[in-house]
Amino acid sequence: MREVMGEVSHKIDELVEASEKRSPICVGLDPNLGNIPEYIKARAYAQYGETLEGAAEAVLEYNKGLIDAVCDLVPVVKPQLAMYEQFGVPGLSCYERTVAYAHKHGLLVIADAKRGDIGSTSEAYARAHVGSVTVGNNEIRPFAADFVTVNPYLGSDGVMPFVEECKRHGTGIFVLVKTSNPSSGELQDRVIDSRPLYELVAEYVREWGAEVMGESGYSSVGAVVGATYPRQGEQLRELMPQTLILVPGYGAQGATGVDLAGFFKPDGTGAIVNSSRGIIAAWKKGPYACPEEQYADAARAATQAMAEDIRAAVAHVRSISFGFGEVTP
Amino acid sequence: MREVMGEVSHKIDELVEASEKRSPICVGLDPNLGNIPEYIKARAYAQYGETLEGAAEAVLEYNKGLIDAVCDLVPVVKPQLAMYEQFGVPGLSCYERTVAYAHKHGLLVIADAKRGDIGSTSEAYARAHVGSVTVGNNEIRPFAADFVTVNPYLGSDGVMPFVEECKRHGTGIFVLVKTSNPSSGELQDRVIDSRPLYELVAEYVREWGAEVMGESGYSSVGAVVGATYPRQGEQLRELMPQTLILVPGYGAQGATGVDLAGFFKPDGTGAIVNSSRGIIAAWKKGPYACPEEQYADAARAATQAMAEDIRAAVAHVRSISFGFGEVTP
Repeated sequence: MREVMGEVSHKIDELVEASEKRSPICVGLDPNLGNIPEYIKARAYAQYGETLEGAAEAVLEYNKGLIDAVCDLVPVVKPQLAMYEQFGVPGLSCYERTVAYAHKHGLLVIADAKRGDIGSTSEAYARAHVGSVTVGNNEIRPFAADFVTVNPYLGSDGVMPFVEECKRHGTGIFVLVKTSNPSSGELQDRVIDSRPLYELVAEYVREWGAEVMGESGYSSVGAVVGATYPRQGEQLRELMPQTLILVPGYGAQGATGVDLAGFFKPDGTGAIVNSSRGIIAAWKKGPYACPEEQYADAARAATQAMAEDIRAAVAHVRSISFGFGEVTP
Repeated sequence: MREVMGEVSHKIDELVEASEKRSPICVGLDPNLGNIPEYIKARAYAQYGETLEGAAEAVLEYNKGLIDAVCDLVPVVKPQLAMYEQFGVPGLSCYERTVAYAHKHGLLVIADAKRGDIGSTSEAYARAHVGSVTVGNNEIRPFAADFVTVNPYLGSDGVMPFVEECKRHGTGIFVLVKTSNPSSGELQDRVIDSRPLYELVAEYVREWGAEVMGESGYSSVGAVVGATYPRQGEQLRELMPQTLILVPGYGAQGATGVDLAGFFKPDGTGAIVNSSRGIIAAWKKGPYACPEEQYADAARAATQAMAEDIRAAVAHVRSISFGFGEVTP
């Protein structure tokens, strides 16, 4: 961890800077065995059997290939914890090694864990994923990601312990505001005091984030808003001017570049768009389908195309804003 | 897993039956290093150093003592996943061994994980905690708990994959409805169509649970409602007649027996009350404070006293109901 004059630097600043240099894209490392090439699984099973260890080894090899292929194109990867937990303890060990491998290749890591509990329990989750735990005289960082996604259903008690841990380590969180799935509206869209619940959560996000502002103008408390809801994205972009938005739902979930324009500010910052299957399983179908041995090349090509698609969408926002002389701060 | 005539038996029925025989109490296995006796930590650190492995070993030894002490008094234990994740991969291995040790001692296990995601991701969490994963030709149960707690913020897409996995394995979930923490009202109490959000969630719980009814009259989809909100508990008890309520907040969080009456039906079923610190750290302070070597005895005494407190509260409900000739079904 970089430290500046005794002060902890903010990972959010690194993320904003790297996304401007490379692209505002996050690659979701959500490995299902069905997406992993047979030759990788065969090799892993030959060594460890058709066991949790074998599955975890296959996932790790697959992830390494993906990280090698995209590490100069994107600033950040997002392993989905569920996909590792499903392989038990070996799966979590694979997750830990995936984080380390990504860091070694200059990538930031968002633990997509959607954790959320209360008080000392949220503290423990924060220590596990974006902080440190003390054992005797040693301070140890267990999984050592840079960011973790957090569920707000339990309110401030559930979220503030994460923020406190982030303060100490310069790490950050992304709070679920409006998720990308079809049924996200069942609770999140419900109207409270004449506005939807997700707007209320957005106001809390702003409040929770006020104490952990980075130098980039963005807070270490970010938000998750699905690309599948472009109108809400635009509205939330205005409501949370200092909040970086992590945007899932691009590609496999149906959203494209034009849906993304409203998530960005005219200066091209403000959002990080995630794609998982569209990149990591690009070798299986669609325009980058290829023999399985070239899965990493397909991932790279899909990432480049996505970067181009987003660049065009952001350029469009910029031209409109400047064209009409209206620049949202 | 017991199988009846090719049909999977429901863990919820086992839980209801065992809670009637023993007590409607769940012991929360939420180990923080501060609550673990020094002699246990010293022994673990001597063997594994002041490392994540050392911490995990201390937690496991402590848990074993607690399980030995309470396994004939209660039907179920609830390890809090955060407390294990904070010790990284060794912590998760300790969690896995805690589940196995509890099962070996005739206890059911609720994984307090508060997971929740969408579609295939929720499926993966369900497989990890209350289901099975397929690797090659093998079907493996990774963490193999009987129940898992689930966060409803993402709606039906997030919850139904858990229900589907529960159908296959006879396992169950407890959905967060109204949590025990002070700020739970920030979102959960917000009024939507003239009723609070938690009531809306309760209606979903009823709907999600309709397909997985056990023979006990309770569904494999349960609910979490904090003991710290007795009025809401009473109301939710009526709103969800076929839902077993897991009730945290007893003891250290401030609720006592009288607060619990409304969570039960007149027949004495309907709720499982959790206590964590009040039992597992009973040796440290309060009426059962004692030398650290006797921590397990203190846990047993605290559990017995809690059972007595709840028995009195339930007897009170029964006497009122029968006394006035009014028996809620």
